[in-house]
Amino acid sequence: MRIDILSVVPRLLESFFAHSILKRAEEKGLAEIHLHDIRDYAVDKHRRVDDYAFGGGAGMVLQVEPIAACIRALQAQRTYDEVIYLTPDGEKLHQKMVNSLSLQTNLLLLCGHYKGVDQRVRDLFITREISIGDYVLSGGELAAAVLADSIIRLVPGVLNDETSALTDSFQDDLLAPPVYSRPAEFEGLKVPEVLLSGHEAKIDQWRMEQSIALTTKKRPDLL
Amino acid sequence: MRIDILSVVPRLLESFFAHSILKRAEEKGLAEIHLHDIRDYAVDKHRRVDDYAFGGGAGMVLQVEPIAACIRALQAQRTYDEVIYLTPDGEKLHQKMVNSLSLQTNLLLLCGHYKGVDQRVRDLFITREISIGDYVLSGGELAAAVLADSIIRLVPGVLNDETSALTDSFQDDLLAPPVYSRPAEFEGLKVPEVLLSGHEAKIDQWRMEQSIALTTKKRPDLL
Repeated sequence: MRIDILSVVPRLLESFFAHSILKRAEEKGLAEIHLHDIRDYAVDKHRRVDDYAFGGGAGMVLQVEPIAACIRALQAQRTYDEVIYLTPDGEKLHQKMVNSLSLQTNLLLLCGHYKGVDQRVRDLFITREISIGDYVLSGGELAAAVLADSIIRLVPGVLNDETSALTDSFQDDLLAPPVYSRPAEFEGLKVPEVLLSGHEAKIDQWRMEQSIALTTKKRPDLL
Repeated sequence: MRIDILSVVPRLLESFFAHSILKRAEEKGLAEIHLHDIRDYAVDKHRRVDDYAFGGGAGMVLQVEPIAACIRALQAQRTYDEVIYLTPDGEKLHQKMVNSLSLQTNLLLLCGHYKGVDQRVRDLFITREISIGDYVLSGGELAAAVLADSIIRLVPGVLNDETSALTDSFQDDLLAPPVYSRPAEFEGLKVPEVLLSGHEAKIDQWRMEQSIALTTKKRPDLL
């Protein structure tokens, strides 16, 4: 799996990709993440990539020409399964979408910034618009990192124990049960007896009951 | 506004906080972000902060003792309005929640990692559990960055033009209208005539119509 991320401030993401699970995935040869600076494709000698919005109003707009040049340069090298624009008005990301994107080969992620990208970028190049949630960020960089992280951890071999992802929240439309680790007692608070019992079937049953109870209480919409 | 972020891998977030709008907010004296390494509070000489889950199963659990020590050390220095745990089974973040959190003074954000934190951390310290969306990440670090970014950009003075945030998606339960910038024509695609007209009332009307049409098409649930 290869993910290309296009941004006007790619250095925002450097430490994340240098230290996280994504770095480990790259070292194992399971994934490649490439950060691209849209400014490298600026058509203007001051490397300017944003300008005022036509019609006025606060906030700058990322211009179509540099982004078009950057996307085309990448598309000349390989075929992308999806060219994704991260935007609060996109389709809302959920785990099933993540699962299906994790099966793709090449993904291109475009990060907006300021008031977003010129609409013609969306009209000409974008195959899918994704929102990570109903809130606004200062740019699409964190959203791209969220999407890349959620996808790459599902690539086989990236997690040390793959069964770990199968028991995550949402994989079976249930929230995960509570977890406990040592010490067995902390300031009077004890780990539930059953988890110390060694009785696997009872533990599984307790976890399922907890998952259903938590989901019923907090997220009845998932059931 | 002060935000303290507790993590077992705080360096993941370094470049984000060093370059983004959050850095600008710090330089202007409008916000402070402090990253804390939970390992500095480990009780074990190997600085270990995670252990197997009681009851078995894949994935490690962040232990209660180091996190308790870290939170208490911070609480001894100031009062926190909220002690927030970022978790996929929390209350789902949306713009109104962001607006209200941006009015607070001190926020503490705890990032889970691996299978999450020992349940007793949640029982003892956490005043609010927040999810940035229905998907699973390799840790809470990106979620904490998303939350911090969404909040801090609303602190008065952080954005160069504050009216910019007022026209964001979700602030009025509508998606934002399309934006365009120069050139007026790109490969045959023209900017809508009205935006070049200079007629402010007509532009406002066009934008409102576009917002309503987009919201009706893509997110009828918001209306």
